[in-house]
Amino acid sequence: IRSGFAEVIFCSGKADEHLLNIFGRLYERDGEVFGTRATKEQYEMIKEHFPQTQYDPISRIVKIEKEKESKIGCIAVCTAGTADIPVAEEAAQTAEYFGSHVERIYDVGVAGIHRLLAKVEQIQKANCVVAVAGMEGALASVIGGLVDKPVIAVPTSVGYGANMNGLSALLTMINSCSNGIAVVNIDNGYGAGYIATQINRMGVKNNG
Amino acid sequence: IRSGFAEVIFCSGKADEHLLNIFGRLYERDGEVFGTRATKEQYEMIKEHFPQTQYDPISRIVKIEKEKESKIGCIAVCTAGTADIPVAEEAAQTAEYFGSHVERIYDVGVAGIHRLLAKVEQIQKANCVVAVAGMEGALASVIGGLVDKPVIAVPTSVGYGANMNGLSALLTMINSCSNGIAVVNIDNGYGAGYIATQINRMGVKNNG
Amino acid sequence: IRSGFAEVIFCSGKADEHLLNIFGRLYERDGEVFGTRATKEQYEMIKEHFPQTQYDPISRIVKIEKEKESKIGCIAVCTAGTADIPVAEEAAQTAEYFGSHVERIYDVGVAGIHRLLAKVEQIQKANCVVAVAGMEGALASVIGGLVDKPVIAVPTSVGYGANMNGLSALLTMINSCSNGIAVVNIDNGYGAGYIATQINRMGVKNNG
Amino acid sequence: IRSGFAEVIFCSGKADEHLLNIFGRLYERDGEVFGTRATKEQYEMIKEHFPQTQYDPISRIVKIEKEKESKIGCIAVCTAGTADIPVAEEAAQTAEYFGSHVERIYDVGVAGIHRLLAKVEQIQKANCVVAVAGMEGALASVIGGLVDKPVIAVPTSVGYGANMNGLSALLTMINSCSNGIAVVNIDNGYGAGYIATQINRMGVKNNG
Amino acid sequence: IRSGFAEVIFCSGKADEHLLNIFGRLYERDGEVFGTRATKEQYEMIKEHFPQTQYDPISRIVKIEKEKESKIGCIAVCTAGTADIPVAEEAAQTAEYFGSHVERIYDVGVAGIHRLLAKVEQIQKANCVVAVAGMEGALASVIGGLVDKPVIAVPTSVGYGANMNGLSALLTMINSCSNGIAVVNIDNGYGAGYIATQINRMGVKNNG
Amino acid sequence: IRSGFAEVIFCSGKADEHLLNIFGRLYERDGEVFGTRATKEQYEMIKEHFPQTQYDPISRIVKIEKEKESKIGCIAVCTAGTADIPVAEEAAQTAEYFGSHVERIYDVGVAGIHRLLAKVEQIQKANCVVAVAGMEGALASVIGGLVDKPVIAVPTSVGYGANMNGLSALLTMINSCSNGIAVVNIDNGYGAGYIATQINRMGVKNNG
Amino acid sequence: IRSGFAEVIFCSGKADEHLLNIFGRLYERDGEVFGTRATKEQYEMIKEHFPQTQYDPISRIVKIEKEKESKIGCIAVCTAGTADIPVAEEAAQTAEYFGSHVERIYDVGVAGIHRLLAKVEQIQKANCVVAVAGMEGALASVIGGLVDKPVIAVPTSVGYGANMNGLSALLTMINSCSNGIAVVNIDNGYGAGYIATQINRMGVKNNG
Amino acid sequence: IRSGFAEVIFCSGKADEHLLNIFGRLYERDGEVFGTRATKEQYEMIKEHFPQTQYDPISRIVKIEKEKESKIGCIAVCTAGTADIPVAEEAAQTAEYFGSHVERIYDVGVAGIHRLLAKVEQIQKANCVVAVAGMEGALASVIGGLVDKPVIAVPTSVGYGANMNGLSALLTMINSCSNGIAVVNIDNGYGAGYIATQINRMGVKNNG
Ligand SMILES: Nc1ncnc2c1ncn2[C@@H]1O[C@H](COP(=O)(O)O)[C@@H](O)[C@H]1O
Ligand SMILES: Nc1ncnc2c1ncn2[C@@H]1O[C@H](COP(=O)(O)O)[C@@H](O)[C@H]1O
Ligand SMILES: Nc1ncnc2c1ncn2[C@@H]1O[C@H](COP(=O)(O)O)[C@@H](O)[C@H]1O
Ligand SMILES: Nc1ncnc2c1ncn2[C@@H]1O[C@H](COP(=O)(O)O)[C@@H](O)[C@H]1O
Ligand SMILES: [Mg+2]
Ligand SMILES: [Mg+2]
Ligand SMILES: [Mg+2]
Ligand SMILES: [Mg+2]
Ligand SMILES: [Mg+2]
Ligand SMILES: [Mg+2]
Ligand SMILES: [Mg+2]
Ligand SMILES: [Mg+2]
Repeated sequence: IRSGFAEVIFCSGKADEHLLNIFGRLYERDGEVFGTRATKEQYEMIKEHFPQTQYDPISRIVKIEKEKESKIGCIAVCTAGTADIPVAEEAAQTAEYFGSHVERIYDVGVAGIHRLLAKVEQIQKANCVVAVAGMEGALASVIGGLVDKPVIAVPTSVGYGANMNGLSALLTMINSCSNGIAVVNIDNGYGAGYIATQINRMGVKNNG
Repeated sequence: IRSGFAEVIFCSGKADEHLLNIFGRLYERDGEVFGTRATKEQYEMIKEHFPQTQYDPISRIVKIEKEKESKIGCIAVCTAGTADIPVAEEAAQTAEYFGSHVERIYDVGVAGIHRLLAKVEQIQKANCVVAVAGMEGALASVIGGLVDKPVIAVPTSVGYGANMNGLSALLTMINSCSNGIAVVNIDNGYGAGYIATQINRMGVKNNG
Repeated sequence: IRSGFAEVIFCSGKADEHLLNIFGRLYERDGEVFGTRATKEQYEMIKEHFPQTQYDPISRIVKIEKEKESKIGCIAVCTAGTADIPVAEEAAQTAEYFGSHVERIYDVGVAGIHRLLAKVEQIQKANCVVAVAGMEGALASVIGGLVDKPVIAVPTSVGYGANMNGLSALLTMINSCSNGIAVVNIDNGYGAGYIATQINRMGVKNNG
Repeated sequence: IRSGFAEVIFCSGKADEHLLNIFGRLYERDGEVFGTRATKEQYEMIKEHFPQTQYDPISRIVKIEKEKESKIGCIAVCTAGTADIPVAEEAAQTAEYFGSHVERIYDVGVAGIHRLLAKVEQIQKANCVVAVAGMEGALASVIGGLVDKPVIAVPTSVGYGANMNGLSALLTMINSCSNGIAVVNIDNGYGAGYIATQINRMGVKNNG
Repeated sequence: IRSGFAEVIFCSGKADEHLLNIFGRLYERDGEVFGTRATKEQYEMIKEHFPQTQYDPISRIVKIEKEKESKIGCIAVCTAGTADIPVAEEAAQTAEYFGSHVERIYDVGVAGIHRLLAKVEQIQKANCVVAVAGMEGALASVIGGLVDKPVIAVPTSVGYGANMNGLSALLTMINSCSNGIAVVNIDNGYGAGYIATQINRMGVKNNG
Repeated sequence: IRSGFAEVIFCSGKADEHLLNIFGRLYERDGEVFGTRATKEQYEMIKEHFPQTQYDPISRIVKIEKEKESKIGCIAVCTAGTADIPVAEEAAQTAEYFGSHVERIYDVGVAGIHRLLAKVEQIQKANCVVAVAGMEGALASVIGGLVDKPVIAVPTSVGYGANMNGLSALLTMINSCSNGIAVVNIDNGYGAGYIATQINRMGVKNNG
Repeated sequence: IRSGFAEVIFCSGKADEHLLNIFGRLYERDGEVFGTRATKEQYEMIKEHFPQTQYDPISRIVKIEKEKESKIGCIAVCTAGTADIPVAEEAAQTAEYFGSHVERIYDVGVAGIHRLLAKVEQIQKANCVVAVAGMEGALASVIGGLVDKPVIAVPTSVGYGANMNGLSALLTMINSCSNGIAVVNIDNGYGAGYIATQINRMGVKNNG
Repeated sequence: IRSGFAEVIFCSGKADEHLLNIFGRLYERDGEVFGTRATKEQYEMIKEHFPQTQYDPISRIVKIEKEKESKIGCIAVCTAGTADIPVAEEAAQTAEYFGSHVERIYDVGVAGIHRLLAKVEQIQKANCVVAVAGMEGALASVIGGLVDKPVIAVPTSVGYGANMNGLSALLTMINSCSNGIAVVNIDNGYGAGYIATQINRMGVKNNG
């Protein structure tokens, strides 16, 4: 794979037959396969044909994964609340599948800033930070001010009322007054894990 | 004045004759008068008739003010950036006009969280905090997590692009995950100064 | 608990195991526990482990509560219609859990202004008013004009069509021409009950 | 004129030559002519050719009007604030031009409900009420609850911040929980004066 | 009933017990009762207690109605498509319940303008027209240009995609370039039937 | 020019030097040149260098045009009001520059449907119709129902209040219930003239 | 059928009886019948009465079709992704039902531009291109730059988060910087197939 | 400077005295100073005090810059049109000020895809790509599909009508179906240049 990134399946809304077909084709070609946004039903359907398939109900990732040589570099994946963890896990596991080492720093939202500050040194060591937050989405700005590395901000649809299904958090992050922040789509953990890996790889070669 | 709050003039868009008329009537009745959102031209027009009139070009407040007995209690008015100061001054001077003591803590935005943390003790002493911020408006959430007193959040129209003239900051503040936050209209320093004074008065009588 | 406010569980969307875990931990620590946005199913699940648990299907609050010494001060919780009562009860019961005395004045919407006027004296006695309304959300403005104490406005998602799930009521309240009004998120009874308690406590110490 | 309504000119944005042309043609045909949204410059331009032209800088109406036999029936035009008066005058003068008797009840916004209640009997006598309000636009709902006749609600662009140039007031009025309210465009005093006259004429014939 | 309008129940979302309670109370008081937005389940629940209850699954109106003396005047209720009929029937039956004679002119949308033109004379005879349309909502403008009586426009949520659940039709109607149009909330047939009746009654007394 | 369409300059916002540069280069290459959205100042600047330049202050088109052999086929350009004419002229003159014969049918908005119906036969003869309308934008739907050829709908920013600078008309047109309608950007007369010419050319070759 | 287009049934939301009724009437009249947005349940219901009915679960088209003489001309229907195929098939099969020859070029989205470029010659041969895309909807712009024939752009609701159910793709297409693009409603394959056929017929007569 | 990034002044809206003050302070401290969004008037004011100040009217950057050792690595800054160049220059010059080597590839929008394809190899050599585009903003997606390095997408406010001042382009970019794209605020060239430099530095150390 020229780009260094295996093809990934977006399972949401795919018909069973169609999904199984792609899954099989990729597995045959690459010896491993990775799908996001899979339902439990899709997993069980696939498992009947590929019993070695694994499924994580939190991240909704379905996969068959080859033993990886040790993960490289470091990506810090942070969340504001516990409800943001599914999106964070999509990001983290995507990055791991692509070979990155990931540090998880969850539930460090800005309403309790000292929990975040207690983790600053760990976060600062990463080549790239993924900041996952819903509701007001302020986490990315605070982290952006604390680290010198790129921050990929992921708004989530967590919240209610005027959160407008994540649009509010997206706007917060896009308008951030911190330097070094760029934003991906609402709940798009996959996209964050992907670009974070691109950045992490650069940082790694550097220190190697 | 039964409510303990003198009537205030919203000068924006008022015709000269009309404005002068109200200004004069209130001055006559109360011996002092206070107007927000005044242009320099309105000030000069009024000053011709009432030479003792004062004007602050930052807050755009025009007033004739009676000597106040010492201000009571404490309201902390905080801003994220320097561009938010005009709105903060509208809040602060409104609160002072209504008899509150005000502490100004400006330019403590979340992109440099340590500047804010250095002021936490000062902020925690207030009976009420006014948090003024544009762009992503995250300041209110962080302060809300640090203090036990009510936080009145004021979104400002500071920023550009997807800030949507302050709507983005308003949504951030409304969706705050911190406890003890309520929000007023974009750039509504006056409204924040008013309700903060209502709260401060309660706290004051308490400690008196 | 330093802030004088026990931790509260936001039950919505929490997995059973996770919810039970937090519930148990808080109960153990504080001898009481309080959760909002609980489904009947969550309640029944918890009840199996903690038979003394109580549930109110209107407010969707699940709790084990210690006998409280008498409630202090006064918060008036008002609603425009009967459909706003679930949100109002979330506010009222939250405030009561935090030790406030609450007066309920329901179904006093502005389409029948005399029903509201008949209750004005009762409302004016409160240290803080919580005004809960959906549809056009005009209740907060009218109350704001009738009382001298802070009004916490809670827009609700009650209504249909152009109510945009509460956004319309939120905008009404944010744009209020009355003094002394600040707004929390759509349907956020909890948040209103919390900040109203902060304000009520100040008023109480004052009169004590 | 078959419909009983003379043609009216919407002057805004019309080129001088074009405007003068229509103005002249209508004057010739009907012996009177009525234009809305005229600038002072447009008025002066027209006046050079038709010296009997009259202009009201508040409503921005430019006209030559025939002596009317006495105005019929009654339309009550109410405003929340003084800033809404230009729109109210556009409504009132339009209705008068079309032959309706108009009662003006201005500055009776819901933040001071007793000012409105003091006028209720006068308002209830009208065949139709025009309720003009910006900011949160709550006036229409309260009046709707107090009268049995149709209320035509006119949102205005008065306000700032989250008023979204009148959209917020429009949504308030569309979502009104009062019976007997229908809404026209933001700042559309003309449209309100027109339909109010249609309704007033019915009421009048009735009592004649 | 002083206003000449019996109280109406908005059944949507009401708990069974609560609904039955109001239903019974109104029936006892007035000898008739009328509810909108009732589900089939609500109807069946009520019918068990009040077997004479009637239900129309199209309009979702549930009622017990007294024999009416002959209906008065004339309201024309028009729809653009057949999918708008449920909302139109809510309007029509509401108006009939309040004593108005109603003419139904359905499926005369602007994509086939000649179907509408064929009915113009019938429509012009009404004292008030209710124009019900979804999708682009252009019907109200065309009718407004064809009749001299007030047109109450009802946007519906009919359509898909950029119809934004009726908001698009609402905007069309609010921006209408025709004279004599005012708008109620999306799908608010009840509100249209109510105000149309207010207008119709005026027209009737006139011709009586 | 392979595509049969000469390059066109979008003058809006271009610096004088830059504009003159492109203008000269295209004139040199093609012997003619065509620019849209030109200000009077831009025209005068160009004219100093290319005295044969022509300018139409209505459409804001600046051009040097070669004598065209007779225009081919037929495009009908229709407007709802006179305020839509600038956009219509941008469409019409663009189509003419590209060699199409254009019929102008202006001021046939749906509020006076008979003016439109009087022109139906003329419109039906065209290979393509351009329907230009602001405010509620209903013209496109009515024309779509009357002709069998493609209708290109152009929303305009004409109107005020809830027209949201043309977005409202755009939504109307996108939601049209008529067959054979497609939409271009707000005020995009150029784009409509371009695609209408593509369609007209097909129709022409056909009848030639 | 004068317009050369048989009437089509929009099945979505139609009651069984009503749908069957129209279906039967059209079949009787035309010997064929074509319905869009049919559910599997609607198909099975119809099939019981008209056993020769065919159903495509992808496009959700239900039909009885007469043997067609050979299809004429050429319409290229392109999609960005596989998830856009249902909408594309609605367009393609509509066009085929109306007698057009259709070329399907699916899954040529701009993230892999070479897949699209490999098909350019095939696309350029069509008289009209239908470009179907969700998410960012960029396909239409790229195709618009590659072909000289009209492009009908169909935004789809495919995507998540900030796609706002297709509104985002719609805006992309409306703002396209390419010439020769016009847009229909979100997911409106039918509308695109219809207008593409109108255009294709012109192109065909031309080459015949 | 610990982060390796000198402080930058956002000049927009700063009062002369205040701006001069910061400018002087930073110059004194760092021997160089860099300001974005400066007007020509601000530049001239500064120049009077610091005659060595330079100003670029395109990017609106004002600066005094120290001789840099050779720029490192490579950032490709691409624009869709020429109107996007001011934003691109803000990005490019920011990156250069922070020590990055920048390649400018302007006017390669997707309406003429071959102009972009002709530059692919040059773009692929960069460590990071900045993609600047207004209107439909499709450039980022196409580039994202062509390169393996992170793409920072900058929506611009270029366009008109439904571009909603850049919001439309922002949504396009956030919804991109390409991998490896993250987005900054509308017109935020500075922010893009900053994060691109963070990424470029990683890539550089790597190859050093
Ligand atoms: N109904 C509610 N709405 C908003 N916030 C709530 C609500 N109930 C509880 N909370 C807050 O949510 C916090 C717990 O969030 P979590 O960690 O997700 O359980 C509590 O400490 C409260 O601050
Ligand atoms: N379909 C409807 N849409 C809007 N308002 C309604 C509707 N049906 C009844 N109403 C109003 O709702 C009031 C009753 O509301 P409630 O007290 O919630 O039952 C009635 O008096 C009517 O004014
Ligand atoms: N999928 C569709 N989307 C939009 N309009 C459609 C669709 N299918 C059919 N139509 C149109 O809807 C009309 C029928 O609408 P109706 O009278 O509600 O069945 C047809 O004549 C078509 O113009
Ligand atoms: N064009 C720009 N857009 C966004 N942020 C900027 C821009 N230029 C400078 N900044 C940021 O704004 C900060 C200075 O803000 P201020 O204190 O208002 O001067 C700098 O440190 C940068 O982080
Ligand atoms: Mg940083
Ligand atoms: Mg707090
Ligand atoms: Mg008050
Ligand atoms: Mg009423
Ligand atoms: Mg009319
Ligand atoms: Mg047609
Ligand atoms: Mg093209
Ligand atoms: Mg890529």
